[in-house]
This record gives sequence, C-alpha cells and structure tokens, in this order.
Amino acid sequence: MRMVDLIQKKRDQKTLATEEINWLIRGVTDGTIPDYQVSAWLMAVYFNGMSRQETRDLTQAIVQSGDTIQLNGIKGIKVDKHSTGGVGDKTSLIVGPLVAAAGVPVAKMSGRGLGHTGGTVDKLESIAGFHTELDEAAFIEHVNKYKLAIVGQTGQLAPADKKLYAMRDVTATVDSIPLIASSIMGKKLASGADAIILDVKVGNGAFMKTLDKARELAEQMVEIGKGLGKPTIAILSDMNEPLGYEVGNANEVKEAIEVLKGNGEPRLTELCLTIASHMTILGGVYPSLNEARQALEEILHSGKALNMLRTFVEAQGGDPLMIDQPDKLPQAPHQLPVLSDKEGIVESIQADEVGLAAMKLGAGRETKEGSVDHSVGITLVKKVGDRVEKGETLAFIHAKETNPVEALNQLKEAYSISDESPSVPPIIYEIIQ
Amino acid sequence: MRMVDLIQKKRDQKTLATEEINWLIRGVTDGTIPDYQVSAWLMAVYFNGMSRQETRDLTQAIVQSGDTIQLNGIKGIKVDKHSTGGVGDKTSLIVGPLVAAAGVPVAKMSGRGLGHTGGTVDKLESIAGFHTELDEAAFIEHVNKYKLAIVGQTGQLAPADKKLYAMRDVTATVDSIPLIASSIMGKKLASGADAIILDVKVGNGAFMKTLDKARELAEQMVEIGKGLGKPTIAILSDMNEPLGYEVGNANEVKEAIEVLKGNGEPRLTELCLTIASHMTILGGVYPSLNEARQALEEILHSGKALNMLRTFVEAQGGDPLMIDQPDKLPQAPHQLPVLSDKEGIVESIQADEVGLAAMKLGAGRETKEGSVDHSVGITLVKKVGDRVEKGETLAFIHAKETNPVEALNQLKEAYSISDESPSVPPIIYEIIQ
Repeated sequence: MRMVDLIQKKRDQKTLATEEINWLIRGVTDGTIPDYQVSAWLMAVYFNGMSRQETRDLTQAIVQSGDTIQLNGIKGIKVDKHSTGGVGDKTSLIVGPLVAAAGVPVAKMSGRGLGHTGGTVDKLESIAGFHTELDEAAFIEHVNKYKLAIVGQTGQLAPADKKLYAMRDVTATVDSIPLIASSIMGKKLASGADAIILDVKVGNGAFMKTLDKARELAEQMVEIGKGLGKPTIAILSDMNEPLGYEVGNANEVKEAIEVLKGNGEPRLTELCLTIASHMTILGGVYPSLNEARQALEEILHSGKALNMLRTFVEAQGGDPLMIDQPDKLPQAPHQLPVLSDKEGIVESIQADEVGLAAMKLGAGRETKEGSVDHSVGITLVKKVGDRVEKGETLAFIHAKETNPVEALNQLKEAYSISDESPSVPPIIYEIIQ
Repeated sequence: MRMVDLIQKKRDQKTLATEEINWLIRGVTDGTIPDYQVSAWLMAVYFNGMSRQETRDLTQAIVQSGDTIQLNGIKGIKVDKHSTGGVGDKTSLIVGPLVAAAGVPVAKMSGRGLGHTGGTVDKLESIAGFHTELDEAAFIEHVNKYKLAIVGQTGQLAPADKKLYAMRDVTATVDSIPLIASSIMGKKLASGADAIILDVKVGNGAFMKTLDKARELAEQMVEIGKGLGKPTIAILSDMNEPLGYEVGNANEVKEAIEVLKGNGEPRLTELCLTIASHMTILGGVYPSLNEARQALEEILHSGKALNMLRTFVEAQGGDPLMIDQPDKLPQAPHQLPVLSDKEGIVESIQADEVGLAAMKLGAGRETKEGSVDHSVGITLVKKVGDRVEKGETLAFIHAKETNPVEALNQLKEAYSISDESPSVPPIIYEIIQ
C-alpha cells in the first residue's frame, strides 16, 4: 500500500476500505508514514469528508492504536460522559456524584487539556490533597467501593489521535466533523465504557457554532458508538452564555457544591439532571426518564449526591472540609466588580469572550506545558434575561493582580444590555439517540 | 505571520497577499516551515486553486528563491522553448539548430529529469564526446560564437520549486494548474530568457489529457510570462500518438537529423516549423508568420540547420561524424519487429503505452539516480491512419535483451487496428498568445 494512493483516493472523493484506514493509522502511530503525507490526507478529508463506514473504521483504528482500559473488574454497567467543551462547564463535577449516588458506577478518566479553565482533574485539584494518580487496580477498587473515581489519563490511550490532533491543530484541519467525531469517540471507546453520554455544546462559546453542525457531529458520534456496540446518546445543549455563574477552577467546584445542595442555577441544574437521567437509564438503574428524573431530584435534595462527592474526594486524598466549607477553597486576593454602564436587560453574554478573560487571568492553559491557577476566575452576577441598573455589578473578577485591565475590559465587552427582553435559548435543544 | 493562518486562508477560499506568498516560499526554501504545513497548504491549493495574481506572485517567489541566470552578455533577443513533455518529443533537437541558423541566439538549459526517455541533454549525449558542462562564461561565449549552446542545469535555479515538486509528487498534489504553471514558469524565468515559447502537449501521452485543461494551463502560463514582462506564446499540440517515428535517445537524434535534412515525418516537421516561426518572430528576425515560415523552410532544405547542428555538436566536444553518418550512433544489439495480427487501418497508438515500453527497455529514468541507455528505443513503422496488412511490421523494438516480452506486449497493445479510417487530430490545436 502507498500513502500517496490513499491521499489521491480521498482527494478524488473515493472511499477508503477498512484495511486501508487500518494501514494508515498504524503508519501514523508508528511514524512510518511521513507527517507531510498525513497532513495532505487530513486536508483532503477536510474537503471531501468521510463516509459513515470510514468514520467508524477510523474510530476503531484509533482505539486499536494503543492501550484500552479494561473495566470488567467493576460491577454494573459503566456509563461514561463526555462534553465537547464550553465555558463554565462543571457538569462532570455534579453529574458524577449524582449518578454514583443513584447506583451507577462512575469510572472516569479525565484529561487536563487546554482551554479557558483547567479540565475536570484540574478543577478537583483545587481541593487540598486531592490526587488523581491511582493505578488501574486502585481505580477499579475505588469504583467498586465508593461507586465513583476520577483519574487522570494513564497509559497510551489512542496515541494515533494524539498525533493526528497535534497535526490538525497546525494545519487548519481541526474543523472537520468526521475527524472530530472519530477523535472523541476513539478516546472514549479506549477508556472502556459500556455506554456513552455526549454533551454536545452549541453556540458562540462552543466549537460547534450552529445547531446544524452540532447535530451532524452528534449524529455521527451516536452512530459510531452504536455501530461499535456501545449504546450512545447525545444531548445538544446551549453554550451561547456561560454555563451557571462561575468560571474558573475553585470557583466551579464551589458552584458544583451549590448544585449538589439543590441550590443550583436552574439551567445548569436542568442540564445536569437531564444528563444524569439518561446515564442512569443506560446504567440500568431506572426504567424511564420520568422515574429517573424524580429519583435524581430526590437524591439531589436529600444531600446524598453531596455526600457522594465528599466521600469520593476524601477517598482520593482530598480534604472533605473544603466540601463542607467551600470558602476554604483557594481564593484569589482581589475581587473586582464589573459595573454596568446603563440600565436595561442583559441581552447576551458572549461565552467565548468570558472564556478568554478567564484564560488571561490564569485559569486555563494556553500551552500543554502551562499550569493553571486554581484561585482565579469569574463570577457572573447577572445572566441573560436579568434586569440591571446603571452602576450595578454585572460580574466579579477574582484575580492575582490588582488591576487586570485586559480581562476586565473583555468581560465588560462580553455583556450586551438592551431595552427589551431577549429570547433566551433553551438549555437543551435536542436529544439524539 | 503564521503558516497555519495562511493554510486556513487558502482552505477558506481567501486570497493570499504578495507578502504572504513571499514569506511562505522563503520558509519553504530555507526549511523553516515544516513540510506537513506545506503539504496541507498544497492540498488546499489543489481544491481551491489560486487567483491569477497569486499564481504570478508564486512564480516570482519561486524565481527569487535561488540563482537567476544572467544572459545579458549574449547579443540579441534570447528566446527559450519549453515542452510540457510527451513521447518521442525531440523538437528541441530540431528547433534549436533551426532558429539558431535563422539568427536567433539559443542559450538552452536543459534538465535530465525523469520520463519515458532521457531529456534533451541525455539525447545529445548519445553523440560520442558531447558534453554539456560549460561554465557560465563559456556558455555565453559559445552562444555568441555559434548561436547555439545547450547545457545541463547549473547553480541553484528555483530551489523552492524543487522542494515543492518533491512534496507534490508524494502528496497527490501534482495535478493543479496554478502549481504546474508557476513551477514551469518559475524555472524558465530563472533561466534568464527574454521571451518564452511553450509547447503544451495534449492527449493520452501528455500530462494534460484534455484540450480544456491544456488551454487553461497555457493561458495561465502566458499570462504569468506577460505579467512579468516576458513575451510568452503557447502552442497546444497533439500527444495522442507519439511524435514522429522514433522514441529513445540515439533514435531521436537520428530522427532529428532526418528532419533537419528536410525528410522529416510531416506532423513532426510541421510542429517544429510552427514553434521555430514563433521563436524567430519573438527573436525579432522575421516580421510575420508567413515570412518566418518561408525562410525557415528554406533554411531547412538548404542544409543550413543541419550544419548548425554539426557545428554546435562539435563545439561541445561531440563527434560530427555521427551527424553525417547517423548509423554510427549507439545501436542496441537486437531489433525486434512487432507484427500486426490483422489487416486494417491504424486507429490509434496510445502514446503513454509506447512511452512505458521505452522506459522498460531502459531509455528513460524511473528514479533521479537512474541512468539511461542511449541505444535502446522504439521505431514506429506505422502511424495513425496508415494501412497495415496482417503480419506486417507495426514497429521495431531496439533492445539489449533478446526477448523483452513485456515491452513487446505493451507496444503491441498500444496499437488499435480498425476497419475504418480514423479521424486524425491536428498536430497543432491552438496558439495562445
């Protein structure tokens, strides 16, 4: 087989056979196919797309390119959850304890990644002593004992995806639905889940800006999962304004605790309950959405989910006091208000701008080697649809610096104030299954 | 400037600015832009093309990427000729002496290249003693003294093109008109000609299979040349059957001598006279096509052009006896006839198949490091439109081996014999200027 022929085939809108994709991904993984041929092929895929069969084959080849986690030692149906990423997205911190409390084992592997804030692992590390370095045996033991464990990625999961992604990032080939779908699903499937819930974000703060593109991505991922024997459901959720009130690492842990106490912001709570309902159904705990929803609300309000968070955090070395007294979590030295110039109603809050402001404060990583500051972040006081007076506080910045001008301006710019009530998009657009 | 942004621009059908293309080609030349970004950009160009301005900018950047030959020391207007390549294309061997005999200085730089046979330099090296290693001063002196000199490529001409071409070859991005046009014109313009004649071949034995594609390429090249201040004319000529009777190195020198004696195959002679007419007009020797044609026919039949070949060959160390007695040129040990299975009229001779047969005999290079055998080749006895009896000879193979089965079969397969007279395409389709 010659790579130039496979590039030409894709260039000419022909379909690659399973063995051709397997050969290609083996060559990417072991480095025998030169990068310049891989990137030319990626660009041809960008233009001509892939058939559903090709996308499934690519996903499977990515899974097989490295280690796969075996979760057979965990009793019950393991349901994994993945978000395509947004601003203020702390759903994993809430949904994990919630479904674990309902009896679904949650064995979560989470990356650190790049972004506006850290990943789930970074956020949890805001809690003093919390660590995610469990070996495979300890990981399985924790899940069996406590129902919930979250660890950093170990082993060589989907190394082909790592290589492809690094190349896509510098060759303007990230924005391709079959490449995104196979990348996400390849990593998820290598992590050993029995079933998968996908939270596909839509809007200016998400990678998918339009509902059509998000739907297309969701459909492809659901089809890949099902095609490979793993029940998969995608939830299309709104990411035009940030999710909830808090953006940052410690900030988001605090807000997660509020939701687990039953005092969460309604849209965030609604999203978490919806995700959790589908997860518990896939996990075989409840027979229907109605029953799942009712039971999960009860679990939330009874404090069982918050207890689960405390138990799991303590089991992984974290200080449980920080769950009971969230003001003990890392706190930046300066709290700076952003005031409204005029009165009116919040028409929109550009999620991407809020995310960039958080990144500038130090909440996220710009490069792989960077570190995150757990204490900095943003608290949105006003959300879309809220009334605001002139001079009233729209949001707070939690900063290391005394006057982080750029972040303050960017956050202020993110707000649009109008005279009329805006039409607020639903938090959940569609469920694809 | 970041290469990923330039890739994205091209991917999104935007136009690159002059300084962006200059930056890109500098980065290709000095290796500061990684190959995998270059190839992704090439694939984006394959899909989205380039504007005329971008193609012109790319050409100029290629010229400026290395040395440029200065031919100011040569008196008169230097007209260069380039063929896009075909099977049996010995026009340079004929046109060079012909226009030089008419008084146009011909300072030709010629590559060896890959292909069915060697390049012009390889063909001339069939003549014992002939060498092409003249330094720049000697090159200019020869042209001033003899009106004609042909040398191998020296210096670092258009190194960016060399790098881009090597990459295109292995990433399925060769077949892009702006990339082909800028590659050809970049090399020609770096060689220092005042005016350029392009022989753009069309047909199954050429890179451009259809008249439309050939016309598009020709138009772009003519526009580039004119845009950069060099009068440029393109001739679209037929390459569905091989050009003339001979394919090989010594073989083609023999046929060139026949044409220069005025005994050439009519289509080949017609093409050479047409190219030469335009060259002498561009060279300022004749005022019109009619006058040029008449004068050149006279030069041909008077033997002046053949004398020019002899003089030039001798000046570059070649044995002039081989011009006067072409049977002294290298001759393969075995002459093997290909016989017709049936009677009829030759309907077509697949030029590409004939070329591959010649390559298999050893007439051309498959890799840059390969060598050519000057003695082997093919003589077509029957051409399209000729009547043939069953058992009559269609062609001869001149081979090192006693029974080159593959080449014999391939050559036989190249012939189609029909009951009816075929429509023979014209040798010259169009002139674009």
